[in-house]
Order: sequence, then C-alpha cells, then structure tokens
Amino acid sequence: MVYIQRRERFSSAHQLFNPNWSIEKNDEVFGKCANKNFHGHNFNLIVTVKGSINPDTGFVMNLVDLKRLMKIYVTDKLDHRNLNTDVDFMLGKMASTEVLAVEIWKILEPKISEHHAFLHCVRLEETENNFVEYYGE
Amino acid sequence: MVYIQRRERFSSAHQLFNPNWSIEKNDEVFGKCANKNFHGHNFNLIVTVKGSINPDTGFVMNLVDLKRLMKIYVTDKLDHRNLNTDVDFMLGKMASTEVLAVEIWKILEPKISEHHAFLHCVRLEETENNFVEYYGE
Amino acid sequence: MVYIQRRERFSSAHQLFNPNWSIEKNDEVFGKCANKNFHGHNFNLIVTVKGSINPDTGFVMNLVDLKRLMKIYVTDKLDHRNLNTDVDFMLGKMASTEVLAVEIWKILEPKISEHHAFLHCVRLEETENNFVEYYGE
Amino acid sequence: MVYIQRRERFSSAHQLFNPNWSIEKNDEVFGKCANKNFHGHNFNLIVTVKGSINPDTGFVMNLVDLKRLMKIYVTDKLDHRNLNTDVDFMLGKMASTEVLAVEIWKILEPKISEHHAFLHCVRLEETENNFVEYYGE
Amino acid sequence: MVYIQRRERFSSAHQLFNPNWSIEKNDEVFGKCANKNFHGHNFNLIVTVKGSINPDTGFVMNLVDLKRLMKIYVTDKLDHRNLNTDVDFMLGKMASTEVLAVEIWKILEPKISEHHAFLHCVRLEETENNFVEYYGE
Amino acid sequence: MVYIQRRERFSSAHQLFNPNWSIEKNDEVFGKCANKNFHGHNFNLIVTVKGSINPDTGFVMNLVDLKRLMKIYVTDKLDHRNLNTDVDFMLGKMASTEVLAVEIWKILEPKISEHHAFLHCVRLEETENNFVEYYGE
Repeated sequence: MVYIQRRERFSSAHQLFNPNWSIEKNDEVFGKCANKNFHGHNFNLIVTVKGSINPDTGFVMNLVDLKRLMKIYVTDKLDHRNLNTDVDFMLGKMASTEVLAVEIWKILEPKISEHHAFLHCVRLEETENNFVEYYGE
Repeated sequence: MVYIQRRERFSSAHQLFNPNWSIEKNDEVFGKCANKNFHGHNFNLIVTVKGSINPDTGFVMNLVDLKRLMKIYVTDKLDHRNLNTDVDFMLGKMASTEVLAVEIWKILEPKISEHHAFLHCVRLEETENNFVEYYGE
Repeated sequence: MVYIQRRERFSSAHQLFNPNWSIEKNDEVFGKCANKNFHGHNFNLIVTVKGSINPDTGFVMNLVDLKRLMKIYVTDKLDHRNLNTDVDFMLGKMASTEVLAVEIWKILEPKISEHHAFLHCVRLEETENNFVEYYGE
Repeated sequence: MVYIQRRERFSSAHQLFNPNWSIEKNDEVFGKCANKNFHGHNFNLIVTVKGSINPDTGFVMNLVDLKRLMKIYVTDKLDHRNLNTDVDFMLGKMASTEVLAVEIWKILEPKISEHHAFLHCVRLEETENNFVEYYGE
Repeated sequence: MVYIQRRERFSSAHQLFNPNWSIEKNDEVFGKCANKNFHGHNFNLIVTVKGSINPDTGFVMNLVDLKRLMKIYVTDKLDHRNLNTDVDFMLGKMASTEVLAVEIWKILEPKISEHHAFLHCVRLEETENNFVEYYGE
Repeated sequence: MVYIQRRERFSSAHQLFNPNWSIEKNDEVFGKCANKNFHGHNFNLIVTVKGSINPDTGFVMNLVDLKRLMKIYVTDKLDHRNLNTDVDFMLGKMASTEVLAVEIWKILEPKISEHHAFLHCVRLEETENNFVEYYGE
C-alpha cells in the first residue's frame, strides 16, 4: 500500500455565521470571521489516495486523473467563489473548513474508487497556521 | 544605508469590477475575479524601511514600532474585511493589488518618516504566484 | 472524527548537554549542539486536535481557544527564552526536541480535554530539515 | 514512542517509460513525462524514524547517524544522477516516485534497525504539488 | 511606476558541459553537474514587469496576458524537456541558469512591450538555495 | 551584468543588550530580545554577487567557490554559536541583524572580488517575518 498526494489551490470568500443565532452571538463566537461582507483565503487542498502500485505504470493512480477529478468536481466549484452563496454542495451548511473537508470527501470518495484506488485523507490549509484533515470516519 | 523588512498578513475578500463598464465587459476583462459575490486571498504585506544604523540600538528602526504602524494603520483595517466595501482608504477605487499597494504607501510613508527612517518599498503577495511592489515613484 | 491543526512559533536558545558526562563525551555525542554558550532556533509548534464537528459552529474546537491555550501554557514560556535555564517544565531535563515535544503534550492534553476535544499530536519543527512528532503513547 | 524526521534533498533526471509498450502507448499514458531526453526534479526525501527516547541523550536516534545513512545509502546515489540509467537499485524498474519510495524503504529499513529504532515512513516530494509516502506494508 | 510579478514553474533536465574541454576538465569545473546522463530541477521563473496603473483596470498589465506570454514562449518549451537537447533557443549554448535567464529576457522583452509595459527582471530559482536574476543590461 | 544568489543557513543564540544602559532601559527598548540567558534563531544568509557571464562556463562565478567562501569565512563562525560571545568579528558590537549584515559584507566583499565578481547584497532572514539587506553603502 502506497500513498500519493496531490495539492491543488483555490481562492474563496466566506463568512462564519449561524443564522439561528443573533448577530451579537455570532460576533461573540466567530469574532472577525463573522464579518457580514465576507473575508477570504487562499486554500490549499491536499488529497491523499492509497492503493497498490500498478506494475505497468509504477503508479498507484495516474496523477493526471487525480488532478482532473479534483478540478472538475471540487476546485472549479470553489475557486474565485463565495463558499456561503456560490457552491451547490455547501448551501445551507456552516462554511467552516471542517465542514468543507467533509463535503469534499463525500464528493471525491466514489470518484476515486472508480480508479482502483482509495481516498485516504482530505487536507485543507486555510492559512499558513490553520489546517484541517478528514479521514472519512 | 541598511534596509529592514517586516512581513504582516491579512485575509480579505475582494472583487475586480469597474462600475463604468457593463457586466459583460467586466467579465471579459477580469474573468473569474469579477464574481459578484466576491472571492478572497491570504495577502502578505512586506514593508521595506531604509535608514542608517542607530549605534545605541543596532537598529535602523525598532521593529516593534514598524509592526505597530503596519497593524494600526493598515492590516487592522484590511484583515477579515472586504476590500471593496469595508476599507475607508479603498472606497471608490479599483480593488486591485496594484492600487492597494499604492494606497498603503501613502498611509505608511509619513508615519515611518517620524521614526527617522524612510519607507522604501511596499510589497504585496496575493497568492504564491502573483506579487506587486511599489517604490513611491 | 475531524482533525484540526494550529501552528505557533517561538524562538529559543538551547544546548544539548548531559551533566553526568565529561565535556569530551558531550562533544563526541552532541557535536556543535553542545556549545557551552548555547545556540538557537526558530521552532514551529503544530498541535493537532481531534473531535467531532459541533453543528452549531462547524468547529471541532474554536481555534481562538486553541491559540490561547498554546500561547499561555506553552509558547509564552518558551519564546525568547533559554530552554536549559528559563523554562520551568524543562528544568533538569535534556533540552532535546524529543523531550520538549513530550513535555508539551503533558501540559496541553488535559487543557484540551476541557474543550470536548482530544489532543492527537504535538509536532515540533526545529529547522527546515529536522522534525519531531509525539502522539501520547 | 516518539517520531523523528529528517529531510534531505537531491536533484535528478528521469523519464517514465515502459519498454514493453509502444512509444504511442507510453505517450498516451505518461504524456510529457515520457520525453525521451528526460526531464528532472528537485526531490525532497523525508524519512520518519520511531523509537523510545534514550534518557542519556534525549534522542530517539542521533540525527547525525540518520543523516549519514540517508546520504551514503540513498542521496549520494541519486543526486545529480539519472534515475533511469545511473542508479543501481533502480535499474530495470519503473522510475516513478512510488517505486523509488519503496526501494528507498528496502535500503534504509535494515540500516536504521541497527540503531535501536524503526523506520516508519519514507516520503518523497517531487514537486510542490506531488508527494508519495510508503509505510512498509 | 508599479512592479508586478508572476511566478511560473517548469521541470527540466540539464547538464553543464563545455564541448571544447576534455571530460576531465569538465568534471573539474562542473563537478557532479557534468554527469553525462543529465540531472534535473524544478525551476521557478519569476518575471517582473513595470509600468503605470491603467485607471480602468487597476492593472499594470493583465496577469492573464503575462501568464499566457510566459507559458507560450517560455515554459511550454522548457517544461519536461532537456535544456541541452530539446530547446530551440538554448541549442549551442551553455545550459547554465545564468544563460537561460538572459535568453528568456530576449524572448519576453519585445512581447511585453506590446502590452504598454516593460520587462524589468527575469529571476530563475534552480533549487531552494541557488538563484539568478537578469535586468537586461 | 547578471546577479547570482546563494542561500546558506545557520542557527545561533543572541541577545540584544547595550552595556551602557541600565537593565530597565534595555528591557524597555529591546523587550524580550534582552533576555539575559539568550534566545535564538535559524538565520538564512542570502548573498548576491554580480558580474558578467564567463563564456567558457556560463557562470558569473562558480557557486562551489561562493559556497566555500560563505562557509569558511561566515557560517562556520556563526552556526551553533552565540553571536554575543563566540564570534570574533562581532565582539564588542551590538548583536543585531543589521550590524551582522554589515559585518558579513566587510568580510565577503574582498574575498568575492578575487573571483572577478562583485558583492551586491547581503540579506539576512531572522524569522519568517523579519529581514535585513545591506548593499555596501
């Protein structure tokens, strides 16, 4: 079992806001992240796929395919978008990095399985100091 | 003459949009950067100050003072804000990184001069691939 | 179960030295790290916390709280200090990065548990080439 | 059990090519990586070793020893070499990063065991976006 | 006058070799860089363009145009290629990073001038430790 | 005229302290940097050399020579040392990064001139946020 990783990048706006709470409660919990006009980040998305090495290619999975899946199903929908208002799979959900990582897992896991490999980890880097990882369970 | 540099960071939303143009023209020129619901970035701001070394301190300028000026007058106004709607010194201006660098220069130049040193360069890093520098002329 | 990570930084002096050994033996084992007048590093501390996502916040744990715990109990005691002489929880111990990681775990593990989350990993980066991780067992 | 990591670097040429396939099939699967005159990368090799802390040194394993093993047995054979033609332990194998990680594991695992520690992971970073990890099973 | 910078990447094989010298002389001067089967690097190319800000766009030059020029005329010809054998504008020249920077300048300078801006600097990063800059004179 | 740059690293302890001042005055001006037991950093030293390209080598100056000069005359004297007490060329001087940059210039400038090239800049990076540059005048 070998693990391969691919990094892709996207730049998005978002806001942390719970609509069931008052503005005061949102400000208290989320601080400056609750700014009503949004803020934004350059996100790194690092996807780890595991599998055995195909002896004909030396690959666990062709990175060209992994790049394409990440781009079509994830980063094209997130890049230069607003995570609160523009992304179908985030509508009605908290736009936190934790929730985003779980939703990306749900999208990529079945797509990668079609390539005789297994999604192992979805990692998001929101700033140079804040990171989230999800392993599917 | 010695040059010192300080990096600070801020995370902001913005949109590239010329209100004198049609939406089609904006989309044509700015592409995905014109998204009406904004996108965002982690920006690095690197300020270069030049001056002679004070023999009592070994400093061109105390970095504690430079950090404070950058924070109070610039990054506190930009961090977790929307460059198009929330920042007094950007209102009515194109929210491009080039324009932002020039406006930051105008703010910091007189403040730094009060510390017997000279602003030399304002550098902004918008992504890991796109950078702007302004030297005041 | 989702994993969140926070990076904080500190700059410290230290020396690798076993007082039960001769100076020659210390020099033989620790080389230039045994320099009696100390050397130093910029350390990165990356703490990983695991837990389930709180549906009201989208968070495993509020990063504001994690930052505060890391700062009050760890980095405020290490930053711009000497690991051999200035840090209460390192006195009488080898000032290696391995030992420091274990001691940071002991301090942070009970504090993080109070926030309905679990410390998963303490990672220290001493240079761009040397790293240590501790998972509590 | 504590984990220590050491990064070393090497710069190599390589080509992805399966000699049992036609040139057309190689181009189809490997794309520009099949270029017959080779291309190249700056690789990062990160080796993780696990073990208990020696109370006399504060070390899992002296990094001087780990550096030496990585250099003598691995990076001296790879750096400024061609992975397809110049490296004894890669001859006749696909010069993919996955295969290289497995071969480095086979070389280092017995050498590290002689130091009362255990090889845990071989990580290779081929570019800033593509990474491979192998854990020995 | 504002300066904008764009980074692009390419991965190439090369060899330092002077055909007018003996192999011994080449080995003496170029060391391991003279390996006859080539080695390789991930190069960063950072191009700096200077000009005044267009008030309609807030841009010195549209980065979409700068990216396209860098890609079509430079990195598409270098990426996954051999600098000694595959690149038309390097044939018969020493494949050093210095020479490559000068040749890239010659190619990009007239192309950028067509966009009412001026090429200011071509920077190449060959490893994390070795860099070259050329300012056209 | 082409510019080449070489980065080397060193890890040192230091303290900012003016012996002509009271402890209180030192604490007021230098804050935590005045800690009497020292603190430390991983420094990056980036030296820029300018010159014309030698047509026989494609080099401004052989990086092997530049590395050797930087190592023998500078980093071997600084690495794993205390800048206040262990470094001959810093004795009696303020151990600030500004002063260190100027002293490194004085050492390297005549050595590089012997290689038919010119020292252009000494850059020191003290942390990921604080940098100093000196151009010799």
